[in-house]
Amino acid sequence: MQIAILGAGGFLGRKLAARLARQGTLGSRRIERLTLFDLAAPAAPSPAPFPVDSIAGSLTALPEAAIPRGTTHVIHLAAVVSAQAEADWQLGLDVNLHGTLRVIEACQRNHAAGDPPARVVFTSSVASFSGGQNAVLPDDARQLPTNSYGTEKAAAELLLADATRRGAIDAISLRLPTITIRPGRPNRAASSFLSAILREPLLGLTTELPVEEDFAAWIASPRKAVEWLIHAAWMDSTRLGADRGINPPGLRATVRDMLTALEAVRPGSRALVRPNPDPAIASIVATWPAAFTARRATGLGFAPQEPLPDLIRAFLADDLEATRVERGLVGG
Amino acid sequence: MQIAILGAGGFLGRKLAARLARQGTLGSRRIERLTLFDLAAPAAPSPAPFPVDSIAGSLTALPEAAIPRGTTHVIHLAAVVSAQAEADWQLGLDVNLHGTLRVIEACQRNHAAGDPPARVVFTSSVASFSGGQNAVLPDDARQLPTNSYGTEKAAAELLLADATRRGAIDAISLRLPTITIRPGRPNRAASSFLSAILREPLLGLTTELPVEEDFAAWIASPRKAVEWLIHAAWMDSTRLGADRGINPPGLRATVRDMLTALEAVRPGSRALVRPNPDPAIASIVATWPAAFTARRATGLGFAPQEPLPDLIRAFLADDLEATRVERGLVGG
Repeated sequence: MQIAILGAGGFLGRKLAARLARQGTLGSRRIERLTLFDLAAPAAPSPAPFPVDSIAGSLTALPEAAIPRGTTHVIHLAAVVSAQAEADWQLGLDVNLHGTLRVIEACQRNHAAGDPPARVVFTSSVASFSGGQNAVLPDDARQLPTNSYGTEKAAAELLLADATRRGAIDAISLRLPTITIRPGRPNRAASSFLSAILREPLLGLTTELPVEEDFAAWIASPRKAVEWLIHAAWMDSTRLGADRGINPPGLRATVRDMLTALEAVRPGSRALVRPNPDPAIASIVATWPAAFTARRATGLGFAPQEPLPDLIRAFLADDLEATRVERGLVGG
Repeated sequence: MQIAILGAGGFLGRKLAARLARQGTLGSRRIERLTLFDLAAPAAPSPAPFPVDSIAGSLTALPEAAIPRGTTHVIHLAAVVSAQAEADWQLGLDVNLHGTLRVIEACQRNHAAGDPPARVVFTSSVASFSGGQNAVLPDDARQLPTNSYGTEKAAAELLLADATRRGAIDAISLRLPTITIRPGRPNRAASSFLSAILREPLLGLTTELPVEEDFAAWIASPRKAVEWLIHAAWMDSTRLGADRGINPPGLRATVRDMLTALEAVRPGSRALVRPNPDPAIASIVATWPAAFTARRATGLGFAPQEPLPDLIRAFLADDLEATRVERGLVGG
């Protein structure tokens, strides 16, 4: 197994690399080499029982070293996030669509040189769907995105599925729920508040809520997302047929559910969340569906997201301290 | 009205230009100027009651003159066809996907300079769907293409819909059925035989049938396709909402139906069609659905395809003589 993680500097990439280093294996096979790629050379997990290469560069001019010969698995997490792709159409297209074409081409080149088709695990998104608050999306739901990020993800999924059909790669696209609780700082994703309303109070900080408390979202923890990425990397893809897109079994939760669980885990925290309606954010997230049947994924062995108190405790166990340090809140 | 036709040298583009020249109007408005664009400068319809510019170039390096300032309507017919896109992945991507991005950018540039968003009528395809012979596709059917041409068309539809939502253009994507009877010569579309089995016998020539007689297809005549393009160019697009894709009301016909109608219109012709199974062709077309409900299109005023004898007679009236001349069969 030789694994390449694109977007390895992000929080999911770092968690995935750390997990692979702890395990030393993917499924039942030993990992021989790990390549980490991002705009800045990502830090290698330490210790690691295999050699780790850190490569810096842009997805839009993907260097050959990012997906070297012999790569059996590419975990493609690199993306321009939703609010940023909405603000800068060309940048979103360049990275989210054309960057994914560069990944396909790199894998094609390795395949043409004799490598077996690489398993490519692509993180697509719930933002590639519409339907809004009351929809419950079946596994064959049409992707009719109402934002540029979701458009680019859906288009990239089409190209990955076609390259799979042509035999150059072996792709699986995971339409990840909104990842909650993200560690670190607020970011430019329209969904950033869905982490902030839990993370900031757990850090003892106030935060703003841009939507109503009955707003529902389809969410999953970073811990569960990493578990799904590894499952997608290792699973038998012949069971997928032509349909390479998977809606993993996230959790439907309203903001009220989330704040209630927060208050139960850490009494007094809820008061740190202050309503401040933001129509620009609300108009983007209002179109994202908050529920999926996710029957196919469950049948394919993707484990469901645990309930909210577990999701919050996973953050406390995995990320609270590192986030404090990152944000200079130690002792604060 | 200033209209630009991309791919104006093809048979649909020539028919559309001739029709616009005859009418002089689009809907109730006078046409002020027509721009024709293709790899070779297209012949202008003659006479035409408005100035016609013919521009040669590649869609992948679209010259500004192809969609000049003031263009109110772009009819985007330019494409690499299915069997060719399957044989040359890069060429299909360059023209069918990136070429469509060039069209969006040209319209954005005009819009940024003060033009209203141009109506862009894009010819997408039944090949962007799968489901095969027994499927009857509803209007919200998911596009899960199993060929590169259909993949590129579906991805281009996503980008056009997003640019529409962003306000730069006003796009409508028509998923055209297989156009039957195409005039001229056999081409590299996998569906070429669906015209050849009628056209060649009507020219007195033998032809080969690569599939079984009970193979069914979703078809429409060139005459009907031109009518739909004009309807899509003129219709009130505010009725479409976020969903800019339309499945127009074609006709489901088996090869047997087509040969029976051929024999009725021109007795003795059917014997000129010789079975010669071609698994490569059959495997591509077998995944294309042969029936759509097309309720939305009908409600939006797209007229249904007439029955097969009318479709054959339309070819005899519109195209037989020109095809004879083009192929040097005059007097033959």
